[in-house]
Amino acid sequence: MSSGKAVPVSPLAPETIPDLPALDGVGIATAQAGIRYAGRTDVLYLSLAEGTQAAGVFTRSKCPSAPVDWCRAALESPGARALVVNSGNANAFTGALGRDAVVLTAAIAARAAGCRPEDVFIASTGVIGEPLDANKFEGVLADCAGRTEAGSAAWAAAAQAIMTTDTFPKLATRRAEIDGVSVTINGIAKGAGMIAPDMATMLAFAFTDAALPQAVLQALLSAGTARSFNCVTVDGDTSTSDTLMLFATAKAGNPAVADAADPRLSGFKAALDDLLIELAQLVAKDGEGARKFVTVEVGGAADDASAHRIAMSIANSPLVKTAIAGEDANWGRVVMAVGKAGEPADRDRLSIWFGDIRVAHQGARDPAYSEEAASAVMREPDVTVRVDIGLGDGTARVWTCDLTSGYIAINGDYRS
Amino acid sequence: MSSGKAVPVSPLAPETIPDLPALDGVGIATAQAGIRYAGRTDVLYLSLAEGTQAAGVFTRSKCPSAPVDWCRAALESPGARALVVNSGNANAFTGALGRDAVVLTAAIAARAAGCRPEDVFIASTGVIGEPLDANKFEGVLADCAGRTEAGSAAWAAAAQAIMTTDTFPKLATRRAEIDGVSVTINGIAKGAGMIAPDMATMLAFAFTDAALPQAVLQALLSAGTARSFNCVTVDGDTSTSDTLMLFATAKAGNPAVADAADPRLSGFKAALDDLLIELAQLVAKDGEGARKFVTVEVGGAADDASAHRIAMSIANSPLVKTAIAGEDANWGRVVMAVGKAGEPADRDRLSIWFGDIRVAHQGARDPAYSEEAASAVMREPDVTVRVDIGLGDGTARVWTCDLTSGYIAINGDYRS
Repeated sequence: MSSGKAVPVSPLAPETIPDLPALDGVGIATAQAGIRYAGRTDVLYLSLAEGTQAAGVFTRSKCPSAPVDWCRAALESPGARALVVNSGNANAFTGALGRDAVVLTAAIAARAAGCRPEDVFIASTGVIGEPLDANKFEGVLADCAGRTEAGSAAWAAAAQAIMTTDTFPKLATRRAEIDGVSVTINGIAKGAGMIAPDMATMLAFAFTDAALPQAVLQALLSAGTARSFNCVTVDGDTSTSDTLMLFATAKAGNPAVADAADPRLSGFKAALDDLLIELAQLVAKDGEGARKFVTVEVGGAADDASAHRIAMSIANSPLVKTAIAGEDANWGRVVMAVGKAGEPADRDRLSIWFGDIRVAHQGARDPAYSEEAASAVMREPDVTVRVDIGLGDGTARVWTCDLTSGYIAINGDYRS
Repeated sequence: MSSGKAVPVSPLAPETIPDLPALDGVGIATAQAGIRYAGRTDVLYLSLAEGTQAAGVFTRSKCPSAPVDWCRAALESPGARALVVNSGNANAFTGALGRDAVVLTAAIAARAAGCRPEDVFIASTGVIGEPLDANKFEGVLADCAGRTEAGSAAWAAAAQAIMTTDTFPKLATRRAEIDGVSVTINGIAKGAGMIAPDMATMLAFAFTDAALPQAVLQALLSAGTARSFNCVTVDGDTSTSDTLMLFATAKAGNPAVADAADPRLSGFKAALDDLLIELAQLVAKDGEGARKFVTVEVGGAADDASAHRIAMSIANSPLVKTAIAGEDANWGRVVMAVGKAGEPADRDRLSIWFGDIRVAHQGARDPAYSEEAASAVMREPDVTVRVDIGLGDGTARVWTCDLTSGYIAINGDYRS
């Protein structure tokens, strides 16, 4: 559909890709099923030990993809034994054919893993509206099941296999203790620019060897998502396929903890949140055409929810994002974005900072504001925009990237 | 603030600029006050006959400009005798200085017009956050008041004087009858790309010689706005200064009509709506970087409000707008935009057309869909995207433009 020309690696890509440790209970294999791409892996098969529990959060789109519908239903019955992710075709907006495709995919994976279809979780990313020929998984998944690996090379291959327009693979790992027992969390993700032929959908998968009941797992994931992936935006567009799942293999031998609020989980909770935030930031840093990583901090709002809506209004404003691309400390556009959020705000109490430079104060330009100092901040690859609404104690922090001609080129290129 | 380099005239500009007839009770003068621009008019002074009534709709921004605050207050007392519009400085986010500036501007204009300050209406567009030196109006407005003109050349000059990044002046005129008496409506507007230094704010002013009470005028304007300016978007950003006003000089001698719903006003109502729609479309056609004029039609939604939100979600989607810029019949992105609107929608009932080509039907690609035919539609300068939600009878129609690298260049250019 798109000309699919190569895009250079994001200048915001991390210096090094982390080595992920093996995770007891997780086996990884990738394959080339030729779903859309030639000469690259496009299938990730991940086996999960018996007793693995799963949790998930999914797109809020009213038009979700067939795999999203499948995963939501599969979470109704406890247990997870396999994860199948393909790139190249999102199996979205494919009607009855799409439903048939996930059923067939789950059946093939269940045979390969020796489990029930409802223990198989499925995610697809890539072109939408094109039927996915699930028969291409026949043989491929069984072969994958026979040669799974657990080491850092396997994790790196997994992150590679789920990429679409991503310019670098996204991996993160953390360690934590639960009641004195050491546990590990590994995560992989792909972004960003939301749905489009040959383009991205946000997919992220986290895995831990901790023993955690499904309800606890879901509570921890939902809370962590609110502080991470729900705080990142590239263009404000929402994929029909966005999927974030957390799997716990229970191999670490920690005592079961029945309540997500149990203080024995505080360390794990912090480590999980931290990992999810790192993955979410990597998605923004690989936003289509991104040249600057932008943190938007809002304080003094009526409440946290209001602060979040204001922060997202700023982070999604094309005028704010193009100004940052132009290294223009254009606080007037920030005022505009605050004003259009529709949240309580008082022009005459508003203060705005770029980095540590306060450019606006109490409803007017800061008299002490130095254009040179502000411009220096804007030339950095990481830019923080901070707003004090001056009304209450609501706070929020979100991440995004700038809006450049690269975004237009990637998404607006003529069909080949 | 911006490098302010010349931008070519929009390819969507109308072939000819209409000649506006003189309007009894309206006198026009423009001047160079040197507020920001050199070598061009930047002030519009418009005298209004005694007995003129005014109505207005303004930005929903929580951080409105000082002139918007002034106009809202001035509407509280009936009567309008003068309109002062300046380009180059929006007098927005200027705190107490901004309030002082509008008070001084109104005082100077009131002396020039021989009226009360509260009969003066003020609009400003241009750079924000910079104090406006209203002393620059001293002498200028009195001089304007002494040399007002009424003909088509004066109307053309008025439309020119309020331009900022507009690439062409925006004028429209209509005639109608009220109870057998012929009346005229003239309108001018400027856009588009919302607020930014040296950039646009949406300002529009309509004038009629009809005799209409203030309440009726406000009702007609509010209703017309819902069908016109509230149905146009360029980038989803909202100016702190957006202003639309309607003035009625009562010179036409039509009998007063006390109720906006009076059938004797149906012809006037239709003509006003038609004029407002034309002006709103001109704003979209001059959207920053615009190369295509896009009409989004939504039908089958739960209700009209839901249809409007879905239509705006499509019209504001960067992925939809870049696809149209790329002449890519990318209906998957339309599905995405419908899904993210958060309104009732059923993937499997959705149908999508580009022009007359149905590309998606009942939750999947239309089997009869011809890529060639769709591509031909996308190559036209005017593109219509039509969506049938398939749930109810709610409908909406909105207008926008494509998102091109021109938008990025205009809004993201490095400071000079």
